[in-house]
Amino acid sequence: MQIVRSIAELKNILNPRKREGRTVGFVPTMGFLHEGHMELVEEARKDHDIVVMSIFVNPAQFGPGEDYDAYPRDEQHDAELASTAGVDYLFIPSVDEMYPRKSGISILPGEQASRLCGASRPGHFDGVLKVLLKLFSIVDPDESYFGMKDAQQLAIIETFVQDFNLRTSIARVPTVREEDGLAKSSRNVRLLEHERNEASAINRALSQGKRSYYEGVPLQEVAKIVRKAIEEETSGTIDYVDVLAYPSLEENIDDTDEVILAAAVQFTHARLIDNIIMSTIKDEKNV
Amino acid sequence: MQIVRSIAELKNILNPRKREGRTVGFVPTMGFLHEGHMELVEEARKDHDIVVMSIFVNPAQFGPGEDYDAYPRDEQHDAELASTAGVDYLFIPSVDEMYPRKSGISILPGEQASRLCGASRPGHFDGVLKVLLKLFSIVDPDESYFGMKDAQQLAIIETFVQDFNLRTSIARVPTVREEDGLAKSSRNVRLLEHERNEASAINRALSQGKRSYYEGVPLQEVAKIVRKAIEEETSGTIDYVDVLAYPSLEENIDDTDEVILAAAVQFTHARLIDNIIMSTIKDEKNV
Repeated sequence: MQIVRSIAELKNILNPRKREGRTVGFVPTMGFLHEGHMELVEEARKDHDIVVMSIFVNPAQFGPGEDYDAYPRDEQHDAELASTAGVDYLFIPSVDEMYPRKSGISILPGEQASRLCGASRPGHFDGVLKVLLKLFSIVDPDESYFGMKDAQQLAIIETFVQDFNLRTSIARVPTVREEDGLAKSSRNVRLLEHERNEASAINRALSQGKRSYYEGVPLQEVAKIVRKAIEEETSGTIDYVDVLAYPSLEENIDDTDEVILAAAVQFTHARLIDNIIMSTIKDEKNV
Repeated sequence: MQIVRSIAELKNILNPRKREGRTVGFVPTMGFLHEGHMELVEEARKDHDIVVMSIFVNPAQFGPGEDYDAYPRDEQHDAELASTAGVDYLFIPSVDEMYPRKSGISILPGEQASRLCGASRPGHFDGVLKVLLKLFSIVDPDESYFGMKDAQQLAIIETFVQDFNLRTSIARVPTVREEDGLAKSSRNVRLLEHERNEASAINRALSQGKRSYYEGVPLQEVAKIVRKAIEEETSGTIDYVDVLAYPSLEENIDDTDEVILAAAVQFTHARLIDNIIMSTIKDEKNV
Protein backbone atom coordinates (compact mmCIF):
# COMPACT_ATOMS: atom_id res chain seq x y z
CA MET A 1 0.00 0.00 0.00
CA GLN A 2 1.23 3.45 -0.88
CA ILE A 3 0.42 6.57 1.15
CA VAL A 4 -0.16 9.62 -1.06
CA ARG A 5 -0.48 13.14 0.26
CA SER A 6 -0.63 15.30 -2.84
CA ILE A 7 -3.51 15.59 -5.29
CA ALA A 8 -1.15 15.83 -8.25
CA GLU A 9 0.70 12.67 -7.23
CA LEU A 10 -2.51 10.68 -6.78
CA LYS A 11 -3.73 11.72 -10.23
CA ASN A 12 -0.36 10.84 -11.73
CA ILE A 13 -0.61 7.38 -10.20
CA LEU A 14 -4.24 6.66 -11.07
CA ASN A 15 -4.65 8.18 -14.51
CA PRO A 16 -2.28 5.86 -16.43
CA ARG A 17 -3.70 2.82 -14.65
CA LYS A 18 -7.23 3.84 -15.56
CA ARG A 19 -6.16 4.32 -19.17
CA GLU A 20 -4.97 0.70 -19.07
CA GLY A 21 -8.58 -0.19 -18.29
CA ARG A 22 -8.29 -0.87 -14.56
CA THR A 23 -11.28 0.07 -12.47
CA VAL A 24 -11.14 2.03 -9.24
CA GLY A 25 -13.21 1.49 -6.10
CA PHE A 26 -13.11 4.42 -3.68
CA VAL A 27 -13.68 4.50 0.07
CA PRO A 28 -13.78 8.08 1.43
CA THR A 29 -13.35 8.26 5.21
CA MET A 30 -12.46 10.63 8.03
CA GLY A 31 -10.07 8.04 9.46
CA PHE A 32 -9.95 6.40 12.89
CA LEU A 33 -10.88 3.29 11.02
CA HIS A 34 -12.99 0.47 12.35
CA GLU A 35 -14.57 -2.68 10.99
CA GLY A 36 -17.27 -0.64 9.28
CA HIS A 37 -14.64 0.93 7.07
CA MET A 38 -12.96 -2.44 6.55
CA GLU A 39 -16.26 -3.76 5.27
CA LEU A 40 -16.35 -0.95 2.71
CA VAL A 41 -12.83 -1.85 1.61
CA GLU A 42 -13.73 -5.52 1.37
CA GLU A 43 -16.64 -4.73 -0.95
CA ALA A 44 -14.50 -2.41 -3.07
CA ARG A 45 -11.73 -5.04 -3.18
CA LYS A 46 -14.20 -7.65 -4.54
CA ASP A 47 -15.43 -5.40 -7.32
CA HIS A 48 -12.42 -3.39 -8.54
CA ASP A 49 -8.79 -3.67 -9.65
CA ILE A 50 -7.62 -0.72 -7.59
CA VAL A 51 -8.88 0.35 -4.16
CA VAL A 52 -8.31 3.95 -3.07
CA MET A 53 -9.15 5.07 0.44
CA SER A 54 -9.03 8.70 1.54
CA ILE A 55 -8.60 9.87 5.11
CA PHE A 56 -9.53 13.51 5.52
CA VAL A 57 -11.19 15.05 8.55
CA ASN A 58 -13.07 17.63 6.52
CA PRO A 59 -13.37 20.93 8.42
CA ALA A 60 -16.11 22.10 6.03
CA GLN A 61 -18.58 19.59 7.43
CA PHE A 62 -18.09 20.51 11.10
CA GLY A 63 -20.13 23.40 12.43
CA PRO A 64 -19.08 25.91 15.08
CA GLY A 65 -18.92 24.16 18.45
CA GLU A 66 -18.77 20.72 16.82
CA ASP A 67 -15.99 18.26 17.44
CA TYR A 68 -13.54 19.00 14.61
CA ASP A 69 -10.52 19.44 16.88
CA ALA A 70 -11.56 16.57 19.14
CA TYR A 71 -12.39 14.21 16.28
CA PRO A 72 -10.22 11.15 16.93
CA ARG A 73 -7.18 10.68 14.67
CA ASP A 74 -4.62 7.84 14.52
CA GLU A 75 -2.89 7.85 11.17
CA GLN A 76 -0.40 5.06 11.89
CA HIS A 77 -3.00 2.60 13.09
CA ASP A 78 -5.29 3.59 10.20
CA ALA A 79 -2.50 2.88 7.70
CA GLU A 80 -1.94 -0.58 9.19
CA LEU A 81 -5.64 -1.42 9.05
CA ALA A 82 -6.03 -0.06 5.52
CA SER A 83 -3.03 -2.02 4.30
CA THR A 84 -4.28 -5.23 5.88
CA ALA A 85 -7.74 -4.73 4.41
CA GLY A 86 -6.30 -4.44 0.90
CA VAL A 87 -6.22 -0.72 0.15
CA ASP A 88 -3.79 0.05 -2.69
CA TYR A 89 -3.52 3.81 -2.28
CA LEU A 90 -4.21 5.66 0.95
CA PHE A 91 -4.80 9.33 0.18
CA ILE A 92 -4.16 11.57 3.22
CA PRO A 93 -4.20 15.20 2.08
CA SER A 94 -3.63 18.12 4.43
CA VAL A 95 -6.30 20.80 4.89
CA ASP A 96 -4.11 23.17 2.84
CA GLU A 97 -3.87 20.64 0.04
CA MET A 98 -7.65 20.28 -0.12
CA TYR A 99 -8.56 23.90 0.60
CA PRO A 100 -5.63 26.09 -0.52
CA ARG A 101 -7.88 29.15 -0.50
CA LYS A 102 -11.33 30.10 0.69
CA SER A 103 -13.83 29.18 -1.99
CA GLY A 104 -16.79 31.40 -2.65
CA ILE A 105 -18.69 28.60 -4.36
CA SER A 106 -20.90 26.32 -2.30
CA ILE A 107 -23.07 23.31 -2.98
CA LEU A 108 -26.38 23.40 -1.15
CA PRO A 109 -28.41 20.25 -0.64
CA GLY A 110 -32.15 20.81 -0.60
CA GLU A 111 -34.99 19.55 1.56
CA GLN A 112 -33.27 16.19 2.06
CA ALA A 113 -30.72 17.94 4.26
CA SER A 114 -33.23 19.76 6.44
CA ARG A 115 -34.39 16.67 8.35
CA LEU A 116 -32.66 14.33 10.80
CA CYS A 117 -29.03 15.34 11.36
CA GLY A 118 -29.40 18.30 8.99
CA ALA A 119 -31.79 20.03 11.37
CA SER A 120 -29.24 20.24 14.17
CA ARG A 121 -26.13 20.49 11.97
CA PRO A 122 -26.76 23.39 9.56
CA GLY A 123 -24.16 23.45 6.79
CA HIS A 124 -22.98 19.92 7.57
CA PHE A 125 -24.12 18.39 4.28
CA ASP A 126 -22.91 21.43 2.29
CA GLY A 127 -19.46 20.50 3.58
CA VAL A 128 -19.96 16.83 2.77
CA LEU A 129 -20.95 17.59 -0.83
CA LYS A 130 -18.09 20.07 -1.22
CA VAL A 131 -15.42 17.61 -0.18
CA LEU A 132 -17.00 14.73 -2.10
CA LEU A 133 -17.17 16.65 -5.38
CA LYS A 134 -13.48 17.42 -4.89
CA LEU A 135 -12.59 13.82 -4.02
CA PHE A 136 -14.69 12.38 -6.83
CA SER A 137 -12.98 14.78 -9.27
CA ILE A 138 -9.51 13.90 -7.99
CA VAL A 139 -9.93 10.11 -7.77
CA ASP A 140 -12.49 9.67 -10.59
CA PRO A 141 -13.64 6.34 -9.17
CA ASP A 142 -15.85 3.86 -10.99
CA GLU A 143 -17.66 3.13 -7.74
CA SER A 144 -17.67 4.76 -4.30
CA TYR A 145 -18.58 2.92 -1.11
CA PHE A 146 -20.68 4.33 1.72
CA GLY A 147 -22.08 2.74 4.86
CA MET A 148 -25.77 2.65 5.64
CA LYS A 149 -25.18 3.99 9.15
CA ASP A 150 -25.02 7.49 7.68
CA ALA A 151 -28.25 6.85 5.78
CA GLN A 152 -29.08 10.51 5.31
CA GLN A 153 -25.62 11.24 3.98
CA LEU A 154 -25.97 8.30 1.61
CA ALA A 155 -29.39 9.49 0.39
CA ILE A 156 -28.06 12.99 -0.29
CA ILE A 157 -24.98 11.65 -2.08
CA GLU A 158 -27.12 9.38 -4.26
CA THR A 159 -29.25 12.40 -5.19
CA PHE A 160 -26.15 14.46 -5.95
CA VAL A 161 -24.66 11.78 -8.18
CA GLN A 162 -27.93 11.23 -10.00
CA ASP A 163 -28.92 14.87 -10.48
CA PHE A 164 -25.47 15.98 -11.64
CA ASN A 165 -24.59 12.89 -13.69
CA LEU A 166 -21.44 12.36 -11.66
CA ARG A 167 -19.26 9.62 -13.07
CA THR A 168 -19.02 7.42 -9.99
CA SER A 169 -21.65 4.89 -9.05
CA ILE A 170 -22.56 4.55 -5.38
CA ALA A 171 -22.52 1.30 -3.42
CA ARG A 172 -24.60 1.00 -0.23
CA VAL A 173 -22.90 -1.15 2.39
CA PRO A 174 -24.84 -2.43 5.45
CA THR A 175 -23.90 -1.11 8.88
CA VAL A 176 -21.36 -3.19 10.79
CA ARG A 177 -22.17 -3.64 14.47
CA GLU A 178 -20.50 -4.57 17.74
CA GLU A 179 -21.62 -7.83 19.33
CA ASP A 180 -24.21 -6.01 21.40
CA GLY A 181 -25.65 -4.33 18.28
CA LEU A 182 -24.07 -0.87 18.65
CA ALA A 183 -23.25 0.50 15.20
CA LYS A 184 -19.49 0.77 14.68
CA SER A 185 -18.40 4.41 14.69
CA SER A 186 -15.19 6.36 15.13
CA ARG A 187 -16.99 8.32 17.80
CA ASN A 188 -17.70 5.26 20.02
CA VAL A 189 -14.29 5.58 21.69
CA ARG A 190 -15.41 8.87 23.13
CA LEU A 191 -18.28 7.32 25.08
CA LEU A 192 -17.89 7.14 28.85
CA GLU A 193 -17.89 3.57 30.20
CA HIS A 194 -21.50 3.58 31.37
CA GLU A 195 -22.54 5.29 28.13
CA ARG A 196 -20.85 2.56 26.10
CA ASN A 197 -22.92 -0.02 27.96
CA GLU A 198 -26.13 1.94 27.47
CA ALA A 199 -25.48 2.75 23.82
CA SER A 200 -26.54 -0.68 22.57
CA ALA A 201 -30.06 0.36 23.57
CA ILE A 202 -30.28 2.54 20.44
CA ASN A 203 -30.14 -0.42 18.06
CA ARG A 204 -32.38 -2.49 20.35
CA ALA A 205 -34.96 0.30 20.38
CA LEU A 206 -34.89 0.63 16.58
CA SER A 207 -35.26 -3.15 16.19
CA GLN A 208 -38.16 -3.09 18.62
CA GLY A 209 -39.71 -0.31 16.55
CA LYS A 210 -39.36 -2.38 13.41
CA ARG A 211 -40.99 -5.39 15.05
CA SER A 212 -43.83 -3.22 16.29
CA TYR A 213 -44.38 -1.82 12.81
CA TYR A 214 -44.64 -5.27 11.29
CA GLU A 215 -46.97 -6.27 14.12
CA GLY A 216 -49.34 -3.50 13.00
CA VAL A 217 -48.40 -0.48 15.08
CA PRO A 218 -48.77 2.79 13.08
CA LEU A 219 -45.47 4.50 12.21
CA GLN A 220 -46.19 7.59 14.32
CA GLU A 221 -46.58 5.28 17.33
CA VAL A 222 -43.46 3.35 16.37
CA ALA A 223 -41.35 6.54 16.68
CA LYS A 224 -42.79 7.12 20.15
CA ILE A 225 -41.98 3.57 21.24
CA VAL A 226 -38.38 3.96 20.06
CA ARG A 227 -38.01 7.32 21.75
CA LYS A 228 -39.36 5.98 25.03
CA ALA A 229 -37.05 2.96 24.98
CA ILE A 230 -33.95 5.08 24.35
CA GLU A 231 -34.94 7.55 27.04
CA GLU A 232 -35.48 4.79 29.57
CA GLU A 233 -32.32 2.82 28.80
CA THR A 234 -29.70 5.54 28.23
CA SER A 235 -28.50 8.68 29.96
CA GLY A 236 -28.07 10.39 26.59
CA THR A 237 -30.24 13.18 25.22
CA ILE A 238 -32.32 12.36 22.18
CA ASP A 239 -31.66 14.69 19.25
CA TYR A 240 -34.30 13.02 17.09
CA VAL A 241 -36.23 9.82 16.54
CA ASP A 242 -37.91 10.11 13.18
CA VAL A 243 -39.64 8.12 10.46
CA LEU A 244 -39.25 9.39 6.88
CA ALA A 245 -39.57 8.14 3.31
CA TYR A 246 -36.27 6.73 2.04
CA PRO A 247 -34.27 7.90 0.15
CA SER A 248 -36.27 11.10 -0.47
CA LEU A 249 -36.40 11.81 3.30
CA GLU A 250 -39.81 13.37 2.80
CA GLU A 251 -42.28 13.38 5.66
CA ASN A 252 -45.05 12.11 3.39
CA ILE A 253 -44.60 8.35 3.32
CA ASP A 254 -47.76 7.42 1.41
CA ASP A 255 -46.01 6.57 -1.86
CA THR A 256 -42.67 5.27 -0.69
CA ASP A 257 -41.45 1.68 -0.86
CA GLU A 258 -39.04 2.13 2.03
CA VAL A 259 -38.99 4.19 5.20
CA ILE A 260 -36.08 5.01 7.46
CA LEU A 261 -36.49 4.81 11.21
CA ALA A 262 -33.59 6.89 12.50
CA ALA A 263 -32.28 8.11 15.83
CA ALA A 264 -29.55 10.44 17.05
CA VAL A 265 -28.50 10.52 20.69
CA GLN A 266 -26.11 12.98 22.30
CA PHE A 267 -23.86 11.52 25.00
CA THR A 268 -21.29 13.47 27.03
CA HIS A 269 -18.56 13.58 24.35
CA ALA A 270 -20.14 11.80 21.40
CA ARG A 271 -23.28 12.06 19.32
CA LEU A 272 -24.33 8.68 17.97
CA ILE A 273 -26.65 7.96 15.06
CA ASP A 274 -28.27 4.75 13.90
CA ASN A 275 -31.15 3.70 11.70
CA ILE A 276 -33.16 0.86 10.22
CA ILE A 277 -34.57 0.87 6.70
CA MET A 278 -37.94 -0.91 6.48
CA SER A 279 -40.07 -1.92 3.52
CA THR A 280 -43.44 -0.25 3.88
CA ILE A 281 -46.53 -2.37 4.42
CA LYS A 282 -48.80 -1.35 1.55
CA ASP A 283 -51.82 -3.60 1.54
CA GLU A 284 -52.80 -3.48 5.14
CA LYS A 285 -53.23 0.31 5.22
CA ASN A 286 -50.98 0.23 8.20
CA VAL A 287 -49.95 3.87 8.02
CA MET B 1 -20.50 14.70 -37.63
CA GLN B 2 -22.93 12.73 -35.51
CA ILE B 3 -25.86 14.30 -33.68
CA VAL B 4 -26.43 12.70 -30.27
CA ARG B 5 -29.48 13.39 -28.13
CA SER B 6 -29.12 10.98 -25.21
CA ILE B 7 -26.65 11.18 -22.35
CA ALA B 8 -26.17 7.41 -22.32
CA GLU B 9 -25.41 7.30 -26.03
CA LEU B 10 -22.86 10.11 -25.80
CA LYS B 11 -21.07 8.36 -22.96
CA ASN B 12 -21.11 5.09 -24.88
CA ILE B 13 -19.48 6.83 -27.83
CA LEU B 14 -16.87 8.82 -25.92
CA ASN B 15 -15.76 6.44 -23.17
CA PRO B 16 -14.12 3.78 -25.37
CA ARG B 17 -12.43 6.45 -27.47
CA LYS B 18 -11.03 8.10 -24.36
CA ARG B 19 -9.76 4.73 -23.15
CA GLU B 20 -7.87 4.50 -26.44
CA GLY B 21 -6.07 7.64 -25.36
CA ARG B 22 -7.87 10.18 -27.54
CA THR B 23 -8.36 13.62 -26.03
CA VAL B 24 -11.63 15.53 -26.04
CA GLY B 25 -12.13 19.27 -26.56
CA PHE B 26 -15.57 20.50 -25.51
CA VAL B 27 -17.51 23.55 -26.66
CA PRO B 28 -20.70 24.07 -24.61
CA THR B 29 -23.17 26.45 -26.30
CA MET B 30 -26.80 27.52 -26.28
CA GLY B 31 -26.89 27.24 -30.07
CA PHE B 32 -27.79 29.83 -32.72
CA LEU B 33 -24.17 29.58 -33.63
CA HIS B 34 -22.05 32.40 -34.99
CA GLU B 35 -18.38 32.96 -35.77
CA GLY B 36 -17.60 33.32 -32.08
CA HIS B 37 -18.61 29.70 -31.54
CA MET B 38 -16.74 28.64 -34.69
CA GLU B 39 -13.61 30.20 -33.24
CA LEU B 40 -14.05 28.05 -30.11
CA VAL B 41 -14.38 24.95 -32.31
CA GLU B 42 -11.31 25.92 -34.31
CA GLU B 43 -9.23 26.16 -31.15
CA ALA B 44 -10.58 22.85 -29.83
CA ARG B 45 -9.93 21.24 -33.23
CA LYS B 46 -6.27 22.34 -33.12
CA ASP B 47 -5.69 20.89 -29.67
CA HIS B 48 -7.73 17.68 -29.46
CA ASP B 49 -8.52 14.42 -31.25
CA ILE B 50 -12.27 14.66 -30.68
CA VAL B 51 -14.39 17.82 -30.60
CA VAL B 52 -17.73 17.69 -28.83
CA MET B 53 -20.15 20.61 -29.00
CA SER B 54 -23.30 20.80 -26.93
CA ILE B 55 -26.36 22.87 -27.83
CA PHE B 56 -28.67 23.30 -24.87
CA VAL B 57 -30.72 26.38 -24.07
CA ASN B 58 -30.49 25.89 -20.34
CA PRO B 59 -33.71 26.97 -18.60
CA ALA B 60 -31.92 27.00 -15.23
CA GLN B 61 -29.88 30.04 -16.17
CA PHE B 62 -32.82 32.20 -17.31
CA GLY B 63 -34.65 34.16 -14.64
CA PRO B 64 -38.38 34.96 -14.55
CA GLY B 65 -39.15 37.49 -17.27
CA GLU B 66 -35.92 36.71 -19.12
CA ASP B 67 -35.83 35.58 -22.71
CA TYR B 68 -35.81 31.76 -22.42
CA ASP B 69 -38.77 31.24 -24.75
CA ALA B 70 -37.63 33.96 -27.12
CA TYR B 71 -34.00 32.82 -27.15
CA PRO B 72 -33.24 32.21 -30.85
CA ARG B 73 -33.00 28.59 -31.99
CA ASP B 74 -32.10 27.12 -35.39
CA GLU B 75 -30.97 23.54 -35.00
CA GLN B 76 -30.59 22.72 -38.68
CA HIS B 77 -28.40 25.72 -39.45
CA ASP B 78 -26.42 25.10 -36.26
CA ALA B 79 -25.75 21.51 -37.33
CA GLU B 80 -24.48 22.66 -40.72
CA LEU B 81 -22.16 25.23 -39.15
CA ALA B 82 -20.90 22.80 -36.52
CA SER B 83 -20.21 20.14 -39.12
CA THR B 84 -18.33 22.58 -41.34
CA ALA B 85 -16.28 23.83 -38.41
CA GLY B 86 -15.14 20.31 -37.58
CA VAL B 87 -17.30 19.20 -34.67
CA ASP B 88 -17.30 15.39 -34.34
CA TYR B 89 -20.26 14.96 -31.98
CA LEU B 90 -23.05 17.48 -31.59
CA PHE B 91 -24.87 16.83 -28.33
CA ILE B 92 -28.44 18.24 -28.35
CA PRO B 93 -30.26 16.95 -25.28
CA SER B 94 -33.86 17.82 -24.48
CA VAL B 95 -34.77 19.61 -21.27
CA ASP B 96 -36.22 16.31 -19.97
CA GLU B 97 -33.00 14.51 -20.77
CA MET B 98 -30.96 17.06 -18.80
CA TYR B 99 -33.45 17.69 -16.00
CA PRO B 100 -35.63 14.56 -15.64
CA ARG B 101 -36.76 15.72 -12.20
CA LYS B 102 -36.52 18.80 -10.06
CA SER B 103 -33.24 18.75 -8.19
CA GLY B 104 -33.09 20.02 -4.65
CA ILE B 105 -29.33 20.49 -4.86
CA SER B 106 -27.95 23.80 -6.07
CA ILE B 107 -24.51 25.24 -6.69
CA LEU B 108 -24.13 28.80 -5.50
CA PRO B 109 -21.35 31.00 -6.80
CA GLY B 110 -20.06 33.52 -4.28
CA GLU B 111 -19.15 37.20 -4.44
CA GLN B 112 -17.90 36.86 -8.01
CA ALA B 113 -21.49 36.40 -9.14
CA SER B 114 -22.86 39.43 -7.30
CA ARG B 115 -21.33 42.02 -9.64
CA LEU B 116 -21.88 42.91 -13.30
CA CYS B 117 -24.52 40.65 -14.87
CA GLY B 118 -25.04 38.81 -11.58
CA ALA B 119 -26.50 41.91 -9.96
CA SER B 120 -29.39 42.11 -12.42
CA ARG B 121 -29.69 38.37 -13.10
CA PRO B 122 -30.02 36.68 -9.69
CA GLY B 123 -29.67 32.92 -9.99
CA HIS B 124 -28.20 33.14 -13.50
CA PHE B 125 -24.77 31.82 -12.59
CA ASP B 126 -26.27 29.14 -10.30
CA GLY B 127 -27.92 27.81 -13.45
CA VAL B 128 -24.71 28.09 -15.45
CA LEU B 129 -22.73 26.11 -12.86
CA LYS B 130 -25.50 23.51 -12.55
CA VAL B 131 -25.59 22.74 -16.26
CA LEU B 132 -21.82 22.88 -16.62
CA LEU B 133 -21.19 20.39 -13.81
CA LYS B 134 -23.65 18.09 -15.54
CA LEU B 135 -22.09 18.60 -18.97
CA PHE B 136 -18.54 18.25 -17.65
CA SER B 137 -19.56 15.02 -15.91
CA ILE B 138 -21.24 13.64 -19.04
CA VAL B 139 -18.56 14.62 -21.58
CA ASP B 140 -15.52 14.43 -19.26
CA PRO B 141 -13.52 16.69 -21.56
CA ASP B 142 -9.78 17.28 -21.34
CA GLU B 143 -10.33 20.93 -22.17
CA SER B 144 -13.41 23.16 -22.42
CA TYR B 145 -13.56 26.31 -24.51
CA PHE B 146 -15.19 29.58 -23.48
CA GLY B 147 -15.25 33.00 -25.10
CA MET B 148 -13.97 36.13 -23.39
CA LYS B 149 -17.17 38.03 -24.23
CA ASP B 150 -18.80 36.38 -21.21
CA ALA B 151 -15.84 37.34 -19.06
CA GLN B 152 -17.71 37.07 -15.79
CA GLN B 153 -19.01 33.62 -16.69
CA LEU B 154 -15.47 32.61 -17.61
CA ALA B 155 -14.06 33.93 -14.32
CA ILE B 156 -16.68 32.04 -12.29
CA ILE B 157 -16.12 28.83 -14.26
CA GLU B 158 -12.36 29.07 -13.77
CA THR B 159 -12.95 29.45 -10.02
CA PHE B 160 -15.33 26.48 -10.00
CA VAL B 161 -12.88 24.24 -11.84
CA GLN B 162 -9.99 25.28 -9.62
CA ASP B 163 -11.79 25.12 -6.26
CA PHE B 164 -13.44 21.76 -6.96
CA ASN B 165 -10.53 20.11 -8.82
CA LEU B 166 -12.75 19.47 -11.83
CA ARG B 167 -11.04 17.34 -14.44
CA THR B 168 -11.39 19.68 -17.42
CA SER B 169 -9.00 22.50 -18.10
CA ILE B 170 -10.45 25.79 -19.33
CA ALA B 171 -9.36 27.62 -22.49
CA ARG B 172 -10.01 31.36 -22.81
CA VAL B 173 -10.80 32.35 -26.40
CA PRO B 174 -10.81 36.03 -27.46
CA THR B 175 -14.10 37.66 -28.47
CA VAL B 176 -14.89 37.55 -32.18
CA ARG B 177 -16.32 40.80 -33.56
CA GLU B 178 -18.29 42.10 -36.50
CA GLU B 179 -16.46 44.49 -38.87
CA ASP B 180 -17.72 47.48 -36.91
CA GLY B 181 -16.45 46.03 -33.64
CA LEU B 182 -19.75 44.69 -32.23
CA ALA B 183 -19.10 41.49 -30.30
CA LYS B 184 -20.69 38.48 -32.03
CA SER B 185 -23.68 37.24 -30.06
CA SER B 186 -26.70 35.06 -30.69
CA ARG B 187 -28.77 37.94 -29.36
CA ASN B 188 -27.61 40.42 -32.04
CA VAL B 189 -30.32 39.21 -34.45
CA ARG B 190 -32.91 40.55 -32.06
CA LEU B 191 -31.66 44.12 -32.34
CA LEU B 192 -33.88 46.57 -34.24
CA GLU B 193 -32.19 48.02 -37.33
CA HIS B 194 -31.23 51.35 -35.75
CA GLU B 195 -30.10 49.52 -32.61
CA ARG B 196 -27.81 47.29 -34.67
CA ASN B 197 -26.17 50.42 -36.10
CA GLU B 198 -25.81 52.01 -32.69
CA ALA B 199 -24.56 48.86 -30.97
CA SER B 200 -21.03 49.17 -32.29
CA ALA B 201 -20.72 52.17 -29.98
CA ILE B 202 -20.34 49.80 -27.01
CA ASN B 203 -17.02 48.42 -28.21
CA ARG B 204 -15.90 51.88 -29.35
CA ALA B 205 -16.67 53.30 -25.91
CA LEU B 206 -14.76 50.50 -24.15
CA SER B 207 -11.78 51.01 -26.48
CA GLN B 208 -11.91 54.74 -25.79
CA GLY B 209 -11.95 53.94 -22.08
CA LYS B 210 -8.88 51.77 -22.45
CA ARG B 211 -7.02 54.51 -24.36
CA SER B 212 -7.97 57.04 -21.69
CA TYR B 213 -6.68 54.73 -18.96
CA TYR B 214 -3.33 54.33 -20.64
CA GLU B 215 -3.21 58.11 -21.16
CA GLY B 216 -3.42 58.56 -17.41
CA VAL B 217 -7.12 58.93 -16.63
CA PRO B 218 -8.06 57.32 -13.28
CA LEU B 219 -10.20 54.18 -13.58
CA GLN B 220 -13.23 55.71 -11.85
CA GLU B 221 -13.19 58.44 -14.48
CA VAL B 222 -12.71 55.88 -17.24
CA ALA B 223 -15.99 54.21 -16.31
CA LYS B 224 -17.76 57.58 -16.50
CA ILE B 225 -16.29 58.30 -19.94
CA VAL B 226 -17.48 54.92 -21.22
CA ARG B 227 -20.94 55.38 -19.72
CA LYS B 228 -21.29 58.84 -21.27
CA ALA B 229 -20.20 57.63 -24.70
CA ILE B 230 -22.69 54.74 -24.70
CA GLU B 231 -25.48 57.01 -23.48
CA GLU B 232 -24.79 59.55 -26.20
CA GLU B 233 -24.41 57.09 -29.05
CA THR B 234 -27.12 54.51 -28.38
CA SER B 235 -30.82 54.48 -27.54
CA GLY B 236 -30.25 51.54 -25.18
CA THR B 237 -30.42 51.66 -21.41
CA ILE B 238 -27.17 51.05 -19.57
CA ASP B 239 -27.40 48.19 -17.07
CA TYR B 240 -23.84 48.71 -15.87
CA VAL B 241 -20.46 50.09 -16.82
CA ASP B 242 -17.99 48.83 -14.29
CA VAL B 243 -14.29 48.36 -13.59
CA LEU B 244 -13.29 45.37 -11.44
CA ALA B 245 -10.25 43.25 -10.69
CA TYR B 246 -10.02 40.26 -13.03
CA PRO B 247 -10.64 37.37 -12.57
CA SER B 248 -11.59 37.87 -8.90
CA LEU B 249 -14.18 40.54 -9.87
CA GLU B 250 -13.43 42.31 -6.61
CA GLU B 251 -13.98 46.04 -6.36
CA ASN B 252 -10.58 46.51 -4.77
CA ILE B 253 -8.13 46.70 -7.67
CA ASP B 254 -5.02 47.66 -5.77
CA ASP B 255 -3.33 44.26 -6.02
CA THR B 256 -4.62 42.97 -9.33
CA ASP B 257 -2.60 42.52 -12.51
CA GLU B 258 -5.62 42.82 -14.74
CA VAL B 259 -8.88 44.74 -14.61
CA ILE B 260 -12.03 44.21 -16.60
CA LEU B 261 -13.85 47.19 -18.07
CA ALA B 262 -17.32 45.81 -18.76
CA ALA B 263 -20.65 47.11 -20.01
CA ALA B 264 -24.18 45.76 -20.41
CA VAL B 265 -26.78 47.63 -22.43
CA GLN B 266 -30.45 46.76 -22.71
CA PHE B 267 -32.01 47.33 -26.14
CA THR B 268 -35.65 46.72 -27.04
CA HIS B 269 -35.43 42.93 -27.42
CA ALA B 270 -31.80 42.17 -26.57
CA ARG B 271 -29.40 42.84 -23.74
CA LEU B 272 -25.82 43.08 -24.99
CA ILE B 273 -22.62 42.71 -22.99
CA ASP B 274 -19.02 43.44 -23.89
CA ASN B 275 -15.74 44.01 -22.09
CA ILE B 276 -12.06 44.74 -22.36
CA ILE B 277 -9.42 43.23 -20.09
CA MET B 278 -6.58 45.64 -19.36
CA SER B 279 -3.22 45.17 -17.65
CA THR B 280 -3.06 47.53 -14.70
CA ILE B 281 -0.55 50.33 -14.70
CA LYS B 282 1.43 49.74 -11.51
CA ASP B 283 4.31 52.16 -11.43
CA GLU B 284 2.57 55.37 -12.32
CA LYS B 285 0.14 55.21 -9.38
CA ASN B 286 -2.55 55.71 -11.94
CA VAL B 287 -5.37 54.34 -9.85
